[in-house]
Amino acid sequence: MVNYKVIAFDADDTLWVNEPYFREAEDQFAKLLSMYETENKIQQELYKVITGNIPLYGYGVKSCILSMVQCATELSNNQLPAEITQQILEIGKEMLTKPIELLPGIVEVLEYLSKNYTLIVLTKGDLLDQEKKLERSGLLTYFHHVEVMSEKNPEGYERILKHLDILPQDFLMIGNSLKSDVLPVLKIGANAIHVPFHSVWKFETVSKKALENHQYKTLTSIGEIVDFL
Amino acid sequence: MVNYKVIAFDADDTLWVNEPYFREAEDQFAKLLSMYETENKIQQELYKVITGNIPLYGYGVKSCILSMVQCATELSNNQLPAEITQQILEIGKEMLTKPIELLPGIVEVLEYLSKNYTLIVLTKGDLLDQEKKLERSGLLTYFHHVEVMSEKNPEGYERILKHLDILPQDFLMIGNSLKSDVLPVLKIGANAIHVPFHSVWKFETVSKKALENHQYKTLTSIGEIVDFL
Repeated sequence: MVNYKVIAFDADDTLWVNEPYFREAEDQFAKLLSMYETENKIQQELYKVITGNIPLYGYGVKSCILSMVQCATELSNNQLPAEITQQILEIGKEMLTKPIELLPGIVEVLEYLSKNYTLIVLTKGDLLDQEKKLERSGLLTYFHHVEVMSEKNPEGYERILKHLDILPQDFLMIGNSLKSDVLPVLKIGANAIHVPFHSVWKFETVSKKALENHQYKTLTSIGEIVDFL
Repeated sequence: MVNYKVIAFDADDTLWVNEPYFREAEDQFAKLLSMYETENKIQQELYKVITGNIPLYGYGVKSCILSMVQCATELSNNQLPAEITQQILEIGKEMLTKPIELLPGIVEVLEYLSKNYTLIVLTKGDLLDQEKKLERSGLLTYFHHVEVMSEKNPEGYERILKHLDILPQDFLMIGNSLKSDVLPVLKIGANAIHVPFHSVWKFETVSKKALENHQYKTLTSIGEIVDFL
């Protein structure tokens, strides 16, 4: 039994639904361009453009939309009608204003944990969008600190723990991504709990090999965290 | 004479050149669309689209480019050739990879002040872009903390001071924007120094009336800060 002082939550697909909206957006995109290519090929090309642009654009809706515009002009051999460009921009604006759909049980868990632990949010993505989602979620009241990270790597977690003056052994991270929420946290000597979400972005998946010799707990739903702690 | 504990610097146009690159980008944009409208009209429309999108997109290069794409399709009555869309995306990529041009005297000032004060950076804009600019600038070593804010308003400053455990009277902000770096800081009871930069984005200007009854120091160059303190 460990007595954690700070418990950090990932946001997208841990507190609320996110990934399915990106999948929907990609489907809409593929349909918009269906006169040029098969939907399968369009999705593959889009994935290449989005991940290729991550070093430059980072994560989040705005980056995704910029990559969609680029991918669309490329797939159309520079014949893309401006109307479709407009529709791609609309996909992005819709994503940025979507109501927040909390995951089941999340309010009860936060309500319970906030009495005994300092809770924080560590999310990656676009600064303004993540802040606005937290506001819309109504969950801000449970969190002592919110940090949007440009990348969830060990260095990023280390910097935050140092900044918040927390020792790794006092810190627990909870999230749906093995790549972003679990492995880098274990690497700095802290603990992590994996709560899988049914939809995972291909870019966030890790090989079985990468998980070997790592100890972390997997829960099937966020509600189990209360019993576990 | 006040003994500040923490001195915060704005980044864009305080530590390094920024605004002229946005002006250049707008000029390039206007030239790209010169078959549709006068450059003056194009600049005016772009300003409307960019500022209209701030609540949704926030600040920074990616937001600016998304607004440029929108504005271009609108100005062209949805006739925009895909090639021009591509060129707009290129303007953005160029902005995101531009070498950093430090303002004169900045290294000496940081070198000197870092011996006697805790220095931090408070900037607004895109998270990843600002972090990467700081890295490229070589100035990271001088700063104890870097925070990218989605909006520089009194609430934002208050949250940061609380989070860093600093009293307003121990805090000094230095920046080029009266609207973002000076007025909101005075409002929370802290001090601010204005170091104007020759190029100011129209959106950052404030009326004379808004400045009435406010006490802050204006320096003509960042180097004067050493004598002032």
